Amino acid sequence: MIYKKFTTFRTEQKGAILYVTFDYPPVNIQDIPMLADLTMLSQKLERDSDTKVVVFQSAHPEIFVAHADVDFLKDMSTHAVHQGEVKLLDLQVVLERVSRLPQATIAKIEGFARGGGHKFALACDMRFAARGKARFMQMEVAMGILPCGGGASRMARQAGLGRALEIILSAKDFDADQAAEYGTINRALDPQEIGPFVDSLAERISLWPSAAINACKQAVYASIDKPIEDALKEEAYWLYQATSQTAAIKRFQNAYDSDVENDMTAQRNWDQIVIDVQSIV
Amino acid sequence: MIYKKFTTFRTEQKGAILYVTFDYPPVNIQDIPMLADLTMLSQKLERDSDTKVVVFQSAHPEIFVAHADVDFLKDMSTHAVHQGEVKLLDLQVVLERVSRLPQATIAKIEGFARGGGHKFALACDMRFAARGKARFMQMEVAMGILPCGGGASRMARQAGLGRALEIILSAKDFDADQAAEYGTINRALDPQEIGPFVDSLAERISLWPSAAINACKQAVYASIDKPIEDALKEEAYWLYQATSQTAAIKRFQNAYDSDVENDMTAQRNWDQIVIDVQSIV
Amino acid sequence: MIYKKFTTFRTEQKGAILYVTFDYPPVNIQDIPMLADLTMLSQKLERDSDTKVVVFQSAHPEIFVAHADVDFLKDMSTHAVHQGEVKLLDLQVVLERVSRLPQATIAKIEGFARGGGHKFALACDMRFAARGKARFMQMEVAMGILPCGGGASRMARQAGLGRALEIILSAKDFDADQAAEYGTINRALDPQEIGPFVDSLAERISLWPSAAINACKQAVYASIDKPIEDALKEEAYWLYQATSQTAAIKRFQNAYDSDVENDMTAQRNWDQIVIDVQSIV
Repeated sequence: MIYKKFTTFRTEQKGAILYVTFDYPPVNIQDIPMLADLTMLSQKLERDSDTKVVVFQSAHPEIFVAHADVDFLKDMSTHAVHQGEVKLLDLQVVLERVSRLPQATIAKIEGFARGGGHKFALACDMRFAARGKARFMQMEVAMGILPCGGGASRMARQAGLGRALEIILSAKDFDADQAAEYGTINRALDPQEIGPFVDSLAERISLWPSAAINACKQAVYASIDKPIEDALKEEAYWLYQATSQTAAIKRFQNAYDSDVENDMTAQRNWDQIVIDVQSIV
Repeated sequence: MIYKKFTTFRTEQKGAILYVTFDYPPVNIQDIPMLADLTMLSQKLERDSDTKVVVFQSAHPEIFVAHADVDFLKDMSTHAVHQGEVKLLDLQVVLERVSRLPQATIAKIEGFARGGGHKFALACDMRFAARGKARFMQMEVAMGILPCGGGASRMARQAGLGRALEIILSAKDFDADQAAEYGTINRALDPQEIGPFVDSLAERISLWPSAAINACKQAVYASIDKPIEDALKEEAYWLYQATSQTAAIKRFQNAYDSDVENDMTAQRNWDQIVIDVQSIV
Repeated sequence: MIYKKFTTFRTEQKGAILYVTFDYPPVNIQDIPMLADLTMLSQKLERDSDTKVVVFQSAHPEIFVAHADVDFLKDMSTHAVHQGEVKLLDLQVVLERVSRLPQATIAKIEGFARGGGHKFALACDMRFAARGKARFMQMEVAMGILPCGGGASRMARQAGLGRALEIILSAKDFDADQAAEYGTINRALDPQEIGPFVDSLAERISLWPSAAINACKQAVYASIDKPIEDALKEEAYWLYQATSQTAAIKRFQNAYDSDVENDMTAQRNWDQIVIDVQSIV
């Protein structure tokens, strides 16, 4: 797949990993061109089973994605609507599409990610942030609105209700360590660590079959939306989707020596077996 | 709104913040008069858009709200009921009403909050607890029942399943640091810090438009109850509710200099911009 | 109830606690005999109100339950199925049954618990792990599949979406402290602490009425699957189930001196009251 002609970010393909680097001076604003770029990117990624991991990062030394364009507010209806007639907002549609991508998505946050920038990060599968550099904020309540690109909808799925409400109602900056403590990010890392950490994670995930990556993602997201009985059915469904779409499972069976199962040394180094089998098949 | 004639707490209005101080010797028991007071308080708050934040605290040096009146048990039916004919219990109704208030609610916990006292805290939006003073417990299982004022229903929404089950099945005291680690409270603070911290948070939230505060709350609570597609619709619905009910958004647009968007110094101090705009509009 | 004739674990009854010790050399593999044993165990436990707590542990010095038998993969269909025709997998059925047991279940993890071993632990109510000994991993994605014994469905209920996705997509080993930080276990304990800690917790829970233990469990699990209004109804339903099935509540009322309610010393030691009343009734 060719990833070109974007206005607000540039891309670099390294094997099965696509690095998407926001580079939209002066502050990586989340405006109509950026949403258009994210839509075009998603269209391509949805059809690209060679790309297994997408890492989102920024070329700006201080900013990940600053926030949504405040001009969005100018076009906003001030009429109340009935609950039945509500349509999703453009920002919601774009970020939900990002969230459902078949690839594993990682937000590598080394600067400000406020408002829409933070909502974008929440739509990725995993978030890692650099200490002393990343700053988060949902300031919408202060502007008379709410975090409306999935910010209100996704926060408590990461951090639990009370902490989600504090973040959204306080409209206050918080840093990487606070974010890790509250659970909005996976972990906080030192600035010199975050690059190698994310690279290593992305390279590891890029070894796995793309159908299995997608199956894992969809089953985990469904698990939060559904009662456990339905979640288990969805899990079984995605298992069959994965096994029918990839030959990896048969190859794993063949490459894997079942005597290994009873070998204590193998049990200790199962991690290595998994990697070895991947390199063989 | 006049907040008077309560038996079990007293109130103090400071601008848009209402401080509700439980003062019901000897131990702030959660009995019929307290539930009646909370119902009357909720009725008033539901119609009061001038009050934006409610802080619940206690006048007792050792107790927040001790626990529910054990006399409640005397009136309890010992007949099993069919699932279709179950009606909500009084305590559930009152605490659910507190949970849905349009105001941001903060529990400032500086003493024992066991049983119903803890359930009350869980029905607030945010919880902060003082180290060395706050003590939590759900002892209901030991009494042959379960935490039935939303205690069983709300715990895992804060702390995840495993830790919620441990708290409820162990029926054991735990302190502020344990509560923060398990996620039942937002954070543990030193006794001399908790007052200024909660005041400052309440004052900050009291700057925001009341319709936006309510919209944020309702969207976040809905997000946990609904699949993501429906949660996003609810989020969009509350966005329109907020923008139709407040002029703040238009005033924000006017007061906010869009050149600020491209100014790095402004990006670093977005927090200050938000506060400044609030003071202008 | 007689707990005998198991192939893959042995049992020891201590009062109302059943210790189930996996002892299936060489590595406690989760295969058909182990699933058959877990099914037979569940059948018995479902009818045994004398047993109130089940502790799962391992006789192996390095392994809790190694992982599911890789031979399961050989029988796996490689045909895609439609979402409507999906049936639960055997492993899902067995672990969901363990999850719904009326007893409080504790996984005491002092060795490797990868793949199906980890899924088994996630199906227990509580998980405690020994530092330096416990190792977790979901390696399924690397094998072209997904964690399909409830692993994908249960992880985010403990750890939130982002961390669940990292664990499942990275297919990487993690230790007890990481597990506690991510929330997949209740807490990490030093190797010499974990035995006494779990014994003490199990003994404490074994004091409570079995109907109340079950009511607490079912209400908490339901709370995560249902919107809050329905969760509260389920909570009320289980309250009536508990009060109709146990005389403990009446005995508690009689044994409990209501003057205690107003006594500060008693409030400080409510924990002791609860235990004392249990020993009287």
